Amino acid sequence: MNPAKTGSALPARERILAAAHGLFYRDGIRATGIDRVIAEAGVTKVTFYRHFPSKNDLIKAYLEHRHLMWMAWLDGALERHRGRGRGATARLVAVIREWFESEAYRGCAFLNAVVELGGALPEVAEIAKRHKDEVTGMIVRLLPESRDRQERALAIAVALDGAIMRAQMERASESALAALETLLRALTKGQAD
Amino acid sequence: MNPAKTGSALPARERILAAAHGLFYRDGIRATGIDRVIAEAGVTKVTFYRHFPSKNDLIKAYLEHRHLMWMAWLDGALERHRGRGRGATARLVAVIREWFESEAYRGCAFLNAVVELGGALPEVAEIAKRHKDEVTGMIVRLLPESRDRQERALAIAVALDGAIMRAQMERASESALAALETLLRALTKGQAD
Repeated sequence: MNPAKTGSALPARERILAAAHGLFYRDGIRATGIDRVIAEAGVTKVTFYRHFPSKNDLIKAYLEHRHLMWMAWLDGALERHRGRGRGATARLVAVIREWFESEAYRGCAFLNAVVELGGALPEVAEIAKRHKDEVTGMIVRLLPESRDRQERALAIAVALDGAIMRAQMERASESALAALETLLRALTKGQAD
Repeated sequence: MNPAKTGSALPARERILAAAHGLFYRDGIRATGIDRVIAEAGVTKVTFYRHFPSKNDLIKAYLEHRHLMWMAWLDGALERHRGRGRGATARLVAVIREWFESEAYRGCAFLNAVVELGGALPEVAEIAKRHKDEVTGMIVRLLPESRDRQERALAIAVALDGAIMRAQMERASESALAALETLLRALTKGQAD
């Protein structure tokens, strides 16, 4: 998944969000000053503060924006891999591999925000939790019906977070993906896939 | 696991490390200025800079210090739970529960440091990788001999990282521990435990 490019044809709010997304995700939220976002977006300070009275407002809007983009990407990527005769969990691994191997990969924006700001801005953890709940919901729909489908989907979502952190730490995806495959295989053993 | 308390009877280097540990782990590395560490440690600036010429030196020493403390804690906690007639993975979950439920819990210091500084200070990822390799090695020794013991230990270590992030995000440990148990049960199914 590539971050949105800043396009000067977009309305100011969209340009600010695209600039914030690029910088916050790549360099971190604390490491990115508002002035850099303003310069990158090509808006005036007045325009910026009209849309986002504080950095915290921008952080929350960035996470909501990232959530919509990432879920749309996940949905589309799973759909793209549907026609290739693969089971649901193999498709999930193929899609996650694409993400891990993309040049812009720097882990989960939501987990990163919790680490950076969890104590200072509690809303970040709430937005992250909602994001993870929606990811779990998407995984539920990938799995065949079963009594423990919800439980297994949560376990897969947690395993995925572990793999996300591993790929971020190692700046390589192989051991993260191998572990994810081992976990998914164990969790779906004996199930129609 | 509780962070070391700053004790004024300790030598200056130890006092600085204990203060840095308390502040970096609780508030984050970027959010903690050197001046706060110096004040908390009760040393002079001259003494501080004699031991740690730069903040980056202190960060690396903090992570090495945390590594030794955390591994010693894990080892001792697993040992403490040994006598209770539990299998190896049940002991691991019991020990991780203790950690998640400790008041000072704020996730994995190494993953947090990668998120905060991964791009800016590449040595952080190397130290984190070494830490995770040692954790995986400890998990290998918990598992019964088998052809795929290494592969399963890596998968357990990655699942553990996912649970660590989940417990940090939710500021509660139940769903993280439930997911970890599901993953461990699936991975060790049919094995002597």
